[in-house]
Parts: sequence; C-alpha cells; structure tokens
Amino acid sequence: METDIAAARRDTIRRFERVRSTTDAITSRLSDEDQVPQSRPDASPTKWHRAHTPWFFEEFVLAPHDPGYQRCDDRYAYLFNSYYEAVGARHPRAERGLQTRPTCNDVAAFRAHVDTAIVGLCEHTDDETFAAIATLIELGLHHEQQHQELALMDVKHLFSRNPGGNPHYREGGPVRRDLATPPLGWVDIAGGLVDIGHDPTHGFAFDNENPRHTVLVDRFRIANRLTTAGEYAEFIADGGYDRPELWLSDGWFTAQREHWSAPLYWDRSDEGWTALTFDGRRPVLDAEPVVHVSHYEADAFARWAGARLATEFEWEAAAAGLATVGNLLDDIGTDPLHPCPADVHDPGLRQMFGDAWEWTASAYLPYPRFRIAPGAVGEYNVKFMSGQMVLRGGSAVTPTGHIRSTYRNFFAPHCRWMFSGIRLAGDA
Amino acid sequence: METDIAAARRDTIRRFERVRSTTDAITSRLSDEDQVPQSRPDASPTKWHRAHTPWFFEEFVLAPHDPGYQRCDDRYAYLFNSYYEAVGARHPRAERGLQTRPTCNDVAAFRAHVDTAIVGLCEHTDDETFAAIATLIELGLHHEQQHQELALMDVKHLFSRNPGGNPHYREGGPVRRDLATPPLGWVDIAGGLVDIGHDPTHGFAFDNENPRHTVLVDRFRIANRLTTAGEYAEFIADGGYDRPELWLSDGWFTAQREHWSAPLYWDRSDEGWTALTFDGRRPVLDAEPVVHVSHYEADAFARWAGARLATEFEWEAAAAGLATVGNLLDDIGTDPLHPCPADVHDPGLRQMFGDAWEWTASAYLPYPRFRIAPGAVGEYNVKFMSGQMVLRGGSAVTPTGHIRSTYRNFFAPHCRWMFSGIRLAGDA
Amino acid sequence: METDIAAARRDTIRRFERVRSTTDAITSRLSDEDQVPQSRPDASPTKWHRAHTPWFFEEFVLAPHDPGYQRCDDRYAYLFNSYYEAVGARHPRAERGLQTRPTCNDVAAFRAHVDTAIVGLCEHTDDETFAAIATLIELGLHHEQQHQELALMDVKHLFSRNPGGNPHYREGGPVRRDLATPPLGWVDIAGGLVDIGHDPTHGFAFDNENPRHTVLVDRFRIANRLTTAGEYAEFIADGGYDRPELWLSDGWFTAQREHWSAPLYWDRSDEGWTALTFDGRRPVLDAEPVVHVSHYEADAFARWAGARLATEFEWEAAAAGLATVGNLLDDIGTDPLHPCPADVHDPGLRQMFGDAWEWTASAYLPYPRFRIAPGAVGEYNVKFMSGQMVLRGGSAVTPTGHIRSTYRNFFAPHCRWMFSGIRLAGDA
Amino acid sequence: METDIAAARRDTIRRFERVRSTTDAITSRLSDEDQVPQSRPDASPTKWHRAHTPWFFEEFVLAPHDPGYQRCDDRYAYLFNSYYEAVGARHPRAERGLQTRPTCNDVAAFRAHVDTAIVGLCEHTDDETFAAIATLIELGLHHEQQHQELALMDVKHLFSRNPGGNPHYREGGPVRRDLATPPLGWVDIAGGLVDIGHDPTHGFAFDNENPRHTVLVDRFRIANRLTTAGEYAEFIADGGYDRPELWLSDGWFTAQREHWSAPLYWDRSDEGWTALTFDGRRPVLDAEPVVHVSHYEADAFARWAGARLATEFEWEAAAAGLATVGNLLDDIGTDPLHPCPADVHDPGLRQMFGDAWEWTASAYLPYPRFRIAPGAVGEYNVKFMSGQMVLRGGSAVTPTGHIRSTYRNFFAPHCRWMFSGIRLAGDA
Repeated sequence: METDIAAARRDTIRRFERVRSTTDAITSRLSDEDQVPQSRPDASPTKWHRAHTPWFFEEFVLAPHDPGYQRCDDRYAYLFNSYYEAVGARHPRAERGLQTRPTCNDVAAFRAHVDTAIVGLCEHTDDETFAAIATLIELGLHHEQQHQELALMDVKHLFSRNPGGNPHYREGGPVRRDLATPPLGWVDIAGGLVDIGHDPTHGFAFDNENPRHTVLVDRFRIANRLTTAGEYAEFIADGGYDRPELWLSDGWFTAQREHWSAPLYWDRSDEGWTALTFDGRRPVLDAEPVVHVSHYEADAFARWAGARLATEFEWEAAAAGLATVGNLLDDIGTDPLHPCPADVHDPGLRQMFGDAWEWTASAYLPYPRFRIAPGAVGEYNVKFMSGQMVLRGGSAVTPTGHIRSTYRNFFAPHCRWMFSGIRLAGDA
Repeated sequence: METDIAAARRDTIRRFERVRSTTDAITSRLSDEDQVPQSRPDASPTKWHRAHTPWFFEEFVLAPHDPGYQRCDDRYAYLFNSYYEAVGARHPRAERGLQTRPTCNDVAAFRAHVDTAIVGLCEHTDDETFAAIATLIELGLHHEQQHQELALMDVKHLFSRNPGGNPHYREGGPVRRDLATPPLGWVDIAGGLVDIGHDPTHGFAFDNENPRHTVLVDRFRIANRLTTAGEYAEFIADGGYDRPELWLSDGWFTAQREHWSAPLYWDRSDEGWTALTFDGRRPVLDAEPVVHVSHYEADAFARWAGARLATEFEWEAAAAGLATVGNLLDDIGTDPLHPCPADVHDPGLRQMFGDAWEWTASAYLPYPRFRIAPGAVGEYNVKFMSGQMVLRGGSAVTPTGHIRSTYRNFFAPHCRWMFSGIRLAGDA
Repeated sequence: METDIAAARRDTIRRFERVRSTTDAITSRLSDEDQVPQSRPDASPTKWHRAHTPWFFEEFVLAPHDPGYQRCDDRYAYLFNSYYEAVGARHPRAERGLQTRPTCNDVAAFRAHVDTAIVGLCEHTDDETFAAIATLIELGLHHEQQHQELALMDVKHLFSRNPGGNPHYREGGPVRRDLATPPLGWVDIAGGLVDIGHDPTHGFAFDNENPRHTVLVDRFRIANRLTTAGEYAEFIADGGYDRPELWLSDGWFTAQREHWSAPLYWDRSDEGWTALTFDGRRPVLDAEPVVHVSHYEADAFARWAGARLATEFEWEAAAAGLATVGNLLDDIGTDPLHPCPADVHDPGLRQMFGDAWEWTASAYLPYPRFRIAPGAVGEYNVKFMSGQMVLRGGSAVTPTGHIRSTYRNFFAPHCRWMFSGIRLAGDA
Repeated sequence: METDIAAARRDTIRRFERVRSTTDAITSRLSDEDQVPQSRPDASPTKWHRAHTPWFFEEFVLAPHDPGYQRCDDRYAYLFNSYYEAVGARHPRAERGLQTRPTCNDVAAFRAHVDTAIVGLCEHTDDETFAAIATLIELGLHHEQQHQELALMDVKHLFSRNPGGNPHYREGGPVRRDLATPPLGWVDIAGGLVDIGHDPTHGFAFDNENPRHTVLVDRFRIANRLTTAGEYAEFIADGGYDRPELWLSDGWFTAQREHWSAPLYWDRSDEGWTALTFDGRRPVLDAEPVVHVSHYEADAFARWAGARLATEFEWEAAAAGLATVGNLLDDIGTDPLHPCPADVHDPGLRQMFGDAWEWTASAYLPYPRFRIAPGAVGEYNVKFMSGQMVLRGGSAVTPTGHIRSTYRNFFAPHCRWMFSGIRLAGDA
C-alpha cells in the first residue's frame, strides 16, 4: 500500500508537470522573435517569463535543498531574478527587451534542466526535505501560474504595438455571439461582522491573504453581473471621457495625457467599436464584459452610473460560498482567452470568477497582524503594498488553480493591459 | 439686546478678519521677489496662495450671493482657480511661477477688495443669505488656513533651493534646547467597535471626515510620543537607506532615484546633522521630532524599529478625548514654526497635535456612505482620493483652528516637504 | 593740454557710464516680480542679466587689477558666473529662476558698487594698468550690450508666457504703418577671393571675428531686402508647415514635436495674423520683416521660394562697404524695439543692419588659424562652436555699438526667441 | 560577340548578387532573437536592415519599372521605409524593436523575392529601361553597403547591452599583436586652390559629393597616422575627461550627463583598459587606432595634444592621389571587423582608408551650387545637412566599394557607436 508521503510525492510531481507544460503550451504559439521584445516597462518578454519561472525553483528549491544540484548556467541567477533584493543583484527591468542571449532554445534547455532536477528531487530526497520543498514547490507553481497570465497579457500588448498589423495569437477561437446577458440587477448583502482572508484549512493561499480576521461591513448591494461593453459604450457616448467631474484627479490627468477615449485595445470603425483579441481584431459585442479598463475608468464609470465600486471586503463577503468554476488554462485546448458573456456561475451573482478581474475600491494594504515570511520569499507581496488597488475574481486567462474568493490581485490604478473589468456596487 | 443673528454676523466678521490678517502676517516677511517662483510642480508661489484664497470667497460667496459685487479683475477667475474643473478653465499648475503680473501690489489690492466686500455682505445682507454664506465663509477660512500652512511649506522649499545660501524666513526664533523628551513608551488601546469621523454636533469639519461610522479596531499599542531626530539618526547610521528589505518597492526605487540618505533639509556636517529651519540652518537636536520624512521613510523606519505605523482608525481611537492644544499660527508673534520637543499634551500620549503630521498606514479613501457635496465645492476633497496616504495630528505650522482628532490630511507617499513625522505603533 | 592717456581715461569712463545706464534704462520698465522668473532653460531672469554684467567687471577687471577692491558680496562670484569654467563652480543654469535673493535692490547696489570702483580705477590707476584694463573694459561693455539684447529677448519670452494676458513692456510705441517696402529684387555679387573677418585697424571685435583671412566666394545673388511678414504668410498659406520635402529632417521633427505653424509669437485671429510685440499684441503688417523664425523655418522658406540662404562669407562680401546705421538702444527714448519696414540703408541692399538677425547657411566654426585667448576670457566664444548656425546683421534691439559687417552672432537652429529673420540668396 | 549592353546587364547582375550575398553573410552569424531588438533610437534591428534594403529596390526599381511586378507583401512599403517622406507614411523609428512580425524567415523570403525580380528585370527588360534602372540599382547597392556597416555597428551596440555577458559576433578573429606603429609624424600640405568633390569621370558617388568645386585651402600639416589607443589612454590619464577647458560646451555637458570617462566599449580592469570587439572583450592594444570616440572627444583630444582636427577640405586635399586599398567586407572570410594597427597604405600618410572614420572639423553642409535630385531619391542626403559633422576615410567595417577620397560620412557630434577615430592636424 502506498504511503501518504509517496502519494504526496506523486501528486506534487503530477501537478508540477501539469503546470509546467501549460506554460510550454501557452508559449508554443509564439515565434522566437515574438519572445524577445518588451513593449512596456512593466511588461516582460515571453522568453523572460519562461526563464524566470524555473529560476524560482532553482533559487528557492534546488540550490538550498539539493546538494548535488548543478546550475544550468551561473549567470541565470542574476539574469532572471525579478525583484528579490535579498537574492542579490538583478538586471534592470526596463532593459529586458535587449537580452537576445540566452536564446529561446537556451531557455527551453534551462526549463528542462530544472524540470528533471525537481522531479528527481521529489522522487529521491528524504521525507523531511520533501516536506520542506513541497510547500516551496506549491508556491513556485502558483508563481508560475501568475506568470502564465502575465505572459498572455504581455504578448497581447506586444502584438497591439506591432507595426503593420497585429499578429494573431491564435486563429479561429470561438466567439459566442448568441449568448444572452441578464439585465442588470442588484443583490442585497446584509453585511455585519465578516470573516475576511484565507481559512488555513482550505489549501494554498498567498501570504497577502493572511491572516484571516474580522471586518465590520455595512449592508450594501452589488450588481448581479459585470458591466457589459454595451453599457460602457453608453458611458463613452454620453461624454464620459470629457467630463472631469466624473473622474478622480489623477485619473483625469492620466486620461488627458494619454489621450484615452475608450478601453485599451478598442478602436472605432465605421461599423462601431472593435477590440483586439487573441484571435485578432473583431467587433465589440454589447453583451460581453468590458475589459482592459483602468481603475480610474472603472471609478468614473461607476460614478456616471450613480453607483460605486465594492470594497474588497464587500466583494469577499458577497463571494463567500460561491463555487469557483474552473475551466480555464489548465485545459489549453478549449480556453476562451477572452471573456465571454453570461457564464452563469450562480443564480444570483454571475461572472464572479474567471471572467474579468474586478476593480475594487480598496487600496492594496496588509491585513491586520500580517507577518512577513522570513527570507527572500517574504518579499513576495508585501513590498508592493503601496500605490496599488485590489482586484478580485480572476479573468478568462487566469489559470483555474489561481481562482478563489480570497485571492487579492493588485495593480496601479492607471494600468489596463490586464483583463480588468467592472462590477457596480452601492449603499443599501 | 443683540440678536443671535447679529452676534453671528459679528463673530463671522471677527473670525474672517483674524484669519485673513494672519495670512498677511505670514507673507509680510517675504520680499516681492520671494513671492514669484514655484520651486516644485506641486508647490505654488506665495503670491498665488495670497490670491487664490480671496478667489475662493469671490467665486463661492460674492459672485453668487452679492448682486452688487464688482469683480476686482475678470481675469482672476481663471488665474487663481486651483483645481475646480466645474468653475471653468484654469491656468496650468506647473507654470504658476511664470506669472509676474498681477504683481504683489495687485494681489494686495485684490485681497483688500474682497475683504471689504465680504465684511460688507456680512453686515448688510438679509438673514437668509447670511445663513447661506456663513457656512461658505467658514469653509473659505478653513481653506485659507490650509493655504497658510502650504505657503509656509512652499517658501521653506523655495528657500532651500536658493543658490548662494538659504534666506531666513525670520531671524532669532527660539530654539528650546533644554527640553527633555520622555523615553519611548507604549500605550495600549483596547480597540473594539470605534466611532470614526466627525460628530456633527462638534462644529466644522471637511467633507472627507464624514460620515461618522463604526469601525472594528483590534487591540493595539501606540508610542507615547513622536519618533525623535536622534532615533532617526540611529536608523541612518544602521544603514537604513541602504537596506532594501526595509522598504516598500516604490519607496526603495524613489530613494535610489532621488539619492535620499536623510530627511529632506538635513545635511551632514563635521559636527553632525544639521537641518534647514525658518531661522536658517542649525544642528539637529536629538530630542526634537524628526520631520520632513516621506511615507516611504516612515514605513521603513518603523520596520527597522520592529514596529509599524498606526492605521488612521487606530490613531483616531487613541486620540479621542485628548484636548487639542492650540497655540499656533493664530498667534503669529510667538509661533515656533518648527516642531519643538516634548510638548506635553497629555500624561499618556504626547505630541499628538501640533508637532508634526503623523503618517498613518491608511490610504486616503472615502468613508462608507460618503456623499459628495453638490456643486464645485464638492470637488474639495474626494477627487484626490487616489494614490495618497492619510496623515493625522497637525504640525507646528498648522493653524490652531485646523487641528482636531478627526482631521484627515493627505499626501502622496513620496512627498516630504510638509512637516511630516513618525509615531510608531504595533500589535498588542 | 590733455594727454592722450587722460583723454582715453575720460573716453572709457564716458562710454562705460553710457552703456551701464542703458542697461538700467532698459530694465527700469520692469517690476521686481518681472525680474525673477526664467521662462526657458536658455533664457535668464532680468535680475540675473543685471548682476552678471557687473560680475564680469568684478571678476576680470577689479579683482585682478585693483589691489584695494572689496567685493560687494563674496557669493556673487559663484552666483553670477554664466559659463566660465575656468573661474570656478557656478550655479546650474536651469535654476536661475529660483533665486529670489539677492533681491533687485541688492543687485542695484552691486551695480553701483562696481560702477564706482571701475570709474575710480580708471581715474586713479597707473598708465600701464589702465592700458591693460581699458581693453578688458571694452570687452566687458560689448558683453553688457549683448546682455541688453538678451534681456529684451528673454523678457519678451517671459511676457508671452504670463498667464492671463501678456504684459506690455512699454505703452504706445510707434507703429509705422505707412512705410512702403520695395519689391523683392536681387543684387549680383561678383565674388572671387574675398577678405573675411575683422580688420585690426577698425576698432573692437570679438575673438571669433578673427583672424582676417581670404575665402574663395563664387558669384552669387542676394535679395535687396529682408523677407516680409506678408511673404512669409504666403508660405504658411501654401502649406509650408505641412510639406516635409521643404524641411531639413531635424527641422521637420522639431516643427512636428513643437506644433509649429507660424513664427513664434504669431497668433491667428479672425482678422488675420497678430504678433506679440513690446507694445502688446497687434496685427502683423505685410510690409514688416518677418522675425522670430528658426533656422529650420528660414531654410524651409527659402527652399519654398526657390532660393537658399547666403553663407556668412557671401553675406559679409555683400555687406562690405555698407554703412552701419546706428540708431538703436543707445538712444532708448526712441528705440523702435520691433523691426520696422524699409529702413533704407543703401540704394541697393537695404535692411542689412539693425532690422533682424539674418540666418545664414553657415555653421558657427572657428576661422582658419583661430587662436584662443589665454585665461577665462578665452572661453568667450570658441567653446560654443558646435551645433549652432551663424546670424549676421543685427536686429532692432541690438545696441548700435554692436553692429558691424564682421559680427558673428550664433544660435542653435531651433531657436527663435531672438529677433531673427530671413534674407534670400541664390546662385548667379 | 557580346554587346556592350549585354555585358552591362551581366556586370550589374554579378555586382548585385555579390553585394546582396554579403549582407546575408554578415547577418547569418546572428540568431533570430538577435535580429529583433533596437538598442538605441538611432539604431535599427538587423531584421529591419535586411528588409529595408530590398524595400529600396522594390520601391525605386521594381514598382516603377517592372509592369509585371507583384509585391511580396503590400504592408512592407510602409514598414520598411526609413525616412522617405515622399514615399508615404512610415513606421515610427523608435518602435522598430517591437516588430516581431514579419519574422526573420519572412524577411529572407522578401529578400529572395526581390532578388529574383531584379535579376529577371535586368535580364529581360528593354535596353532603355535597363539604362534607367542600372543607375538606380547602383545607388541601391551603395545604399545596401551603407546598411551593411550600420548593421554591424548596431549589432555591436546591441551585444554591448546584453545583460549577463556580451555575445560574440564571431569567434577567433585574428588579433595582430605584433604590428608596429610608426611614431607620430607630420606631413606638410601646401594647399592653395584645391578641387573638392566628385570627378564625374570617376564612377559612382553620392549626391552630397557633388558638384566638384574649388576651395582655397591654406598651408597645413596633418598627422601621418591615426591617433592610437595608447595616446588616447594618456589623454585619459592626464585628466582629459575632467578638464572643461579642453572641451566644447555641448561636449562637456554631454560627457558629464552621460558619465563618459573613456571611449565607448572601453572598460578599466586590473590589467588596464579592455575593449569590446566582435570577438568579445579583449585588452586594448596601445598600437591600434582608438575608435568609438565622439566628435566632442576627438576635438578635446586634439586640443589637449596642441593640435586640431582637419577640415574636410584639408583631408581631401591630403588624400587626393592616394590609392584606396580595399580588403574589406566584400571578402567576408578574412575581414578583420576591428581596426588593426599600421596598415601601410602610403609611405607618407597611413591609415587614410578603411581603418577608422576620421572626424573632421567641418559641419555637414551642401557644396556650393548643390542641386537636389528630383523625386524621393533626392531625400537621400540633403535633409540631414543640419547638426552633423563630416567624417572621412572609412572604417574596418566599411565595404570596399564604399571607400573613396571624396566620400562624406556624417554623424551628430555626440555619436560614437560607429567606428570613428582621430587624425590630428595643425596650422603650418
């Protein structure tokens, strides 16, 4: 009979191989050339995403825990460190697009080298070490899933900037034009003293979801679905981008400076709005959720609509108890890669998970009594807790294992190259 | 017997004249040349502060409520609008330092023109109108007091950039070298369900202090006094500015880019640290509170000290019930204009009011059920609720009437030209 | 009988006092506030011009040659050094507008202090020293005349940026609307071996006009007058600013980036073009010379007109023998301060001197066998011999003593805040 | 017997194939990834160089002269236009590095497509058309040779910015350590009336070498060889980069801002200076010519050495009659790809051709009576005649056919990523 520890080794290996191969599947649609440039300072080349993810395993699992491990290339420790100051010097972020060597083939070899070493370590190390690395591997796999979504965001942005026509990430993805979206409705939530944050009995969570604590939430209401592209187009038609009274001051300033007049990737044609997708440019569907809006735009839209955004605590209170329907990047063959209208996840609240990241009204700050993990891993989240807003729920390009009701995503309020959308809320 | 309304008119006029003359007293120490430049994009020339404050009374009191009012100069409506989009076009902020006309004398005439008109209106308008304008005048006077502090901050910054030696704002201000500062101690606060925000029965408050609401605050502890300059110098000596693990990511980036190695206005001399003050440059006193630190520095210092900053709710819970000791700019003859050590305001918690603005761990966001006031006055605070952190307490250059336990000041986390300091807090 | 040396002393003093008082007369029309800001990085505050010019006399005449000289303020040596690296550190140019102290009154005192010392030195020093300083004083006075023109250029630019209306430098200057401009004609010049540069027997010249040397100039033709504003308006109407084939590549790029569509200070009104002048904004006169154009615009206009600009050698060959009519800033009471049409200086070639600086096709480079003067004075011109184009002739705000046929003015090709115009030329 | 025209067709085809295949040989050493990034705004990706060169033939030869020509891809006309405004819109230069599609393979197909069409047209078109296109093809081949050198410059720069070690363009290139360099000597040149520019009987030249004309050149002297790296290292050791009196003002400012302290690609190691080459980093040889210096550095070095740079007319006068020794990129098997010391091209003047581009003291301006060619080809040179300095002679990576005594290369004075060096000159 298999022991528990043997089963755990097998499970870890299986999950490791599945997540790693998903990364390979996502990037296999790109040419070597596609994997080199960096189209914005806060994006990264695909090649870098592919190399930074094994770097994590090498740095935090193999180097400290595998005495026989031989690094693939000593320079990679420097080249593929993202932001871990504790680990040592790192390459300036804005110059990642100048790095042509190591090549894509070199990176594939690095990935294979680390894959072999991790699997071997899981199989052969002693039980105590395995227990220690299993947690780190799980962290590394969630980290890799984050980079899967980042890689897709970044390549979409890169393709949007390709002169002479936007390459298609794939051909012939399904567009579900026949789906109905229910009318906008409101769900009342009673509030009260609400438990917020990760329940330690519920599996993995990032440090920033901890510790679980109680928050006093007033009664409120929340929209039954995401804001649609059609509703957002009404906001535009009503002069939403020309009325400073609807905007936060920083937002108005940013919108003017950047000449915003619609969500990122939207263009106006004679037949109406079009949007860039992974399948190329196509007409915007009224019924689909609007995505690629900044916090500033989400906030202005909500003000225009006589509503507001939910706080992250309200959102979590509303989401508690809903099933997180997973269908996404683990099954690369059928991934939609763009949000689709009206996936009914719950009779009352729909589109809470896996459609679009939902901007909240909450700044990204540590929970009460938050403690930083010791060592470099502790840099993971806390040092970004400044100047950013929380998003909840997960998008159509978020891997399944990355979606849960306590998950806190975060971006600066001007960012809009992620798949970010809007859900309205209001006072009861 | 004087009627209530007559007394109210007299009180309003007296308070109006007192605040307005304080502005004149503050700026009378400056030459005409001193009042022209703008030394940073988010600062303003003194001349502009002096003109923007009567603009507020002209735009929101006189123009709508005094049928016989003749504007001093029609162009001023455009020139001295700060950020009220609803009022119309306004002059680009970063070019205020190019405005040499109207001259200082013109601005003095504008102030006198508005003074006469406001006093006349208070004396002669009907009771109903007076009731309406009394509230606006009170708002305008608090607005003017904000600009008194801003003008002092801005001129200090300007003088710090004057080539060939820093002018003194005044000569011979007292330096109280003999004051003792108590040892750092901690005050435990029980927390629980705490009422936060302005009590409508307690006089004036800005819109952003409303509405009063209940927050669940966990038990915590808070330092009995501000962090001293001597303690901050220890942080520097311990490599505080060279250790990325102590810093928020944005803070580390900012500190590197700006070459920060000490608070703003500090310089290292052979005899130790010196600081620029309104009386010129002088040695830093170990016992005085550190000021002119950014949120990033306050946060890093707290992490180095094994503590954290208080949330604004914790701060307000701790401050509730303390007397706000006023001594400051209303009495310009004796104002210290720089923080002094160890003003004992309470046996337990000291230096809570009027020493230094205390950075909190809270982002500046609206309170639950916050409602924007209609009209241009509604722009006052809410549109800045993005990307800023809350400061509490008031500084040595904050006018007395501007200090209260619910007052929410706010600045971007990199700013440090205001009189901002540090109070440590921690979990119980 | 007066000795020669006594006469020379008297002449030097008289000329010194005349030039110095002209500076005072020019700046006396400005308020203290007007003298503080710096509206572009390559401009300077009026107060700085007023202080830098005595600095020159203090640094190069008084300090080395007057043993009893007491500096007015030791800090001025640092503050008012423009670019003489050999003299020591200097204040960063772009921050001159932050300098509120020394005040205008302090600067007036500095000027008086230096005036007294120079006159005293001229009267009482020994003959040998006087001979040495007479040359330096002459250089200093030409230097001061340059700054008279710069101060007028700079204040015009500053006033153009004053929000809320452009202040007038003066009121009621004459506009000569009745003047006729002759039709455009061409003067043929035979060329050949031409002597270029300063004839040492002809009085003062800057180092960059030396040494006199021979240049082979081909036969060419040159316009009999400056390009008029009316002709330039035709260029605009013909799409001159929208046709890249007319422009140098750098010029096209600059014009696009800066959104140029007319000369600096021109605006289009319902009644046609207007221009900002020292007397305020007024309609552009067809007959007046176009001014405030860059080299790029002058070059594009010439190409559009089927012509080209003259080289500086051609210009000097054409100008040789013409009288330089002086009427200008030495007689401040009647100065036009803006170019006027059709001052006939010669039956053939008109407007060669004192109307507008004429852009040439020549880069500003040293003449063959040029030698740098020893010491800091040697920095005067040569180190700017890179990236600039030569202008010839002198403008309506050029002091009389600053106009001669060998004078080489120079600016970067994108500059247009000086009084720069166009004279066409062509191959024979 | 072959007719003349048949021979001309065969010669054109042979030369076409030779130049084109040299481009392929140069770029064949690079990975696909290497061909994507743009490491400075004025550089271009290798892929772009490879595609822009056939674009020239398509746009100027095939489209107008081959009625049956089918474009490879209509979008390429837009994508690969460099700066020809007359041809239509073009892609912003600074974003060339974001273009991942067309891929390297697509570009190879484009090149083959154009090759086939050009050869076919040369073979089959009528004699009159052939006469017309032969000139354009020759221009296109010289254009392609320029881009061969640019591609090598650009890839060297890119590799210098590759994080984690500089890739080698090739392995094992010869370093001739044993070569002697003659002592610095001077050659006197009599000067007089000198013919400058292209002799129409001498084969191909660019428009900017025309028309041939006479210049009066004074007697001068010129160094017998290029400045060596050893001599330049003495300049550095003598504080050359710290002495403003040696520098042009723009140069000093640039050197300070960019923190220059040595030529581009030099680094100081414990053993002395090293330089990046196509074979990787290696010690600087005292005897080799210094390269990768800006005009500012060349000018400062010359001033330090008590000399100056030659004008382009002096250089051409000195070079007249020297044989241009070709050995270079046409024979890719033995190209040195970095300058080597002491190739003796003439008993008197050495290293005049094919070692390093020699900065002159001349601004890049049109020759007298210069006429722009009609059509888009006329944009070739003239519109860059602003803000640049002339270089003469040719470098070690200049193709043989691109070296002649009248050739005028040009770059802005701050550029140093080309193979630019120094030859001293002086007055007789």
